[in-house]
Amino acid sequence: MSEHNQDKHKARQQKVKEQVDAKIEQAQQEKGILQVITGNGKGKSTSGFGTVARCVGHGMNAAVVQFIKGMWECGERNLLERAGVPFAVMKTGFTWETQNRETDTQAAQATWQQAKQWLQDDSIDLVLLDELTYMVSYDYLDLDEVITALENRPAMQSVIITGRGAHRRLTELADTVSEVRNVKHAFEAGIKAQKGFDF
Amino acid sequence: MSEHNQDKHKARQQKVKEQVDAKIEQAQQEKGILQVITGNGKGKSTSGFGTVARCVGHGMNAAVVQFIKGMWECGERNLLERAGVPFAVMKTGFTWETQNRETDTQAAQATWQQAKQWLQDDSIDLVLLDELTYMVSYDYLDLDEVITALENRPAMQSVIITGRGAHRRLTELADTVSEVRNVKHAFEAGIKAQKGFDF
Repeated sequence: MSEHNQDKHKARQQKVKEQVDAKIEQAQQEKGILQVITGNGKGKSTSGFGTVARCVGHGMNAAVVQFIKGMWECGERNLLERAGVPFAVMKTGFTWETQNRETDTQAAQATWQQAKQWLQDDSIDLVLLDELTYMVSYDYLDLDEVITALENRPAMQSVIITGRGAHRRLTELADTVSEVRNVKHAFEAGIKAQKGFDF
Repeated sequence: MSEHNQDKHKARQQKVKEQVDAKIEQAQQEKGILQVITGNGKGKSTSGFGTVARCVGHGMNAAVVQFIKGMWECGERNLLERAGVPFAVMKTGFTWETQNRETDTQAAQATWQQAKQWLQDDSIDLVLLDELTYMVSYDYLDLDEVITALENRPAMQSVIITGRGAHRRLTELADTVSEVRNVKHAFEAGIKAQKGFDF
């Protein structure tokens, strides 16, 4: 690259740096963050688990609540439980497997009791509420009760909620909301779910 | 719930189950999956790291290549390196920090050499190419060379590419593409990046 181009590159990057630094300067509030990861695309739960890995990698404390549990999502549980992360798992499987609204509701409620305890425990830095959105959509959990528990959690505790179709009151309450759009999915092209990747 | 409602619920869920089972039946091709996670929202890299955690939690082998590395993204590295995951990290930091196109390109090329080796190694089940998209956008890496390496990788190896603005040729080649849309972000509301959550 010519010296002239390098000068131009340097000047442009210097400007970016000033903008980034100014933004960082402005963001000084310290608090736990409520993140909602919703949408139809692949990667919502894994994103939550990646943040749990980040948290415990720092020697901080995370807890995981899994509201839908079939044959999926077990590899990360093996690793994270070995790293000391407690899991509460609603052991019912998908609603189309159980086909029983009453027992599903009971299971959701029992799992939610554990979630509520962690949402009151200021020794826990991060709580992942994996697939919580469906529990609200199906009316297995009371939305007001969920909102109240989130609002009253310890000030520095972060919470991640994943799942499709997050209720508007959850996204309104959240500090950070990401919508994972499905552009395309291997499964739709006839590729079987792969161990270590899809589950 | 009344018996009538439970019957209706059961019938509806039975129908869902049939649709899901039929889809699973159709998806029988076994191969490694190429996933691109792009878009401006938060959660792309953590999603990649969550899948790495899943993979190693099954006792399978994953490798991580990080193409942009500042003060960020270290908690997950601690945990995953302890779990035996090799990392190749481009040790330069953001382009607006280095402000030097020539040394950035050299660093990207050196990191890519390690990536290419892993993309030829069939003992590695999953390769995460974190933030690779920027290397292509900035022309630090040759897109044709990246595409060729992806096309020629072992048949059962999965690859995840993260970063904003994924090149169309990468998304075309991919089996699964998720676009993480930024709905809102705590940082924009003045909240400081939090350890164990943002880095």
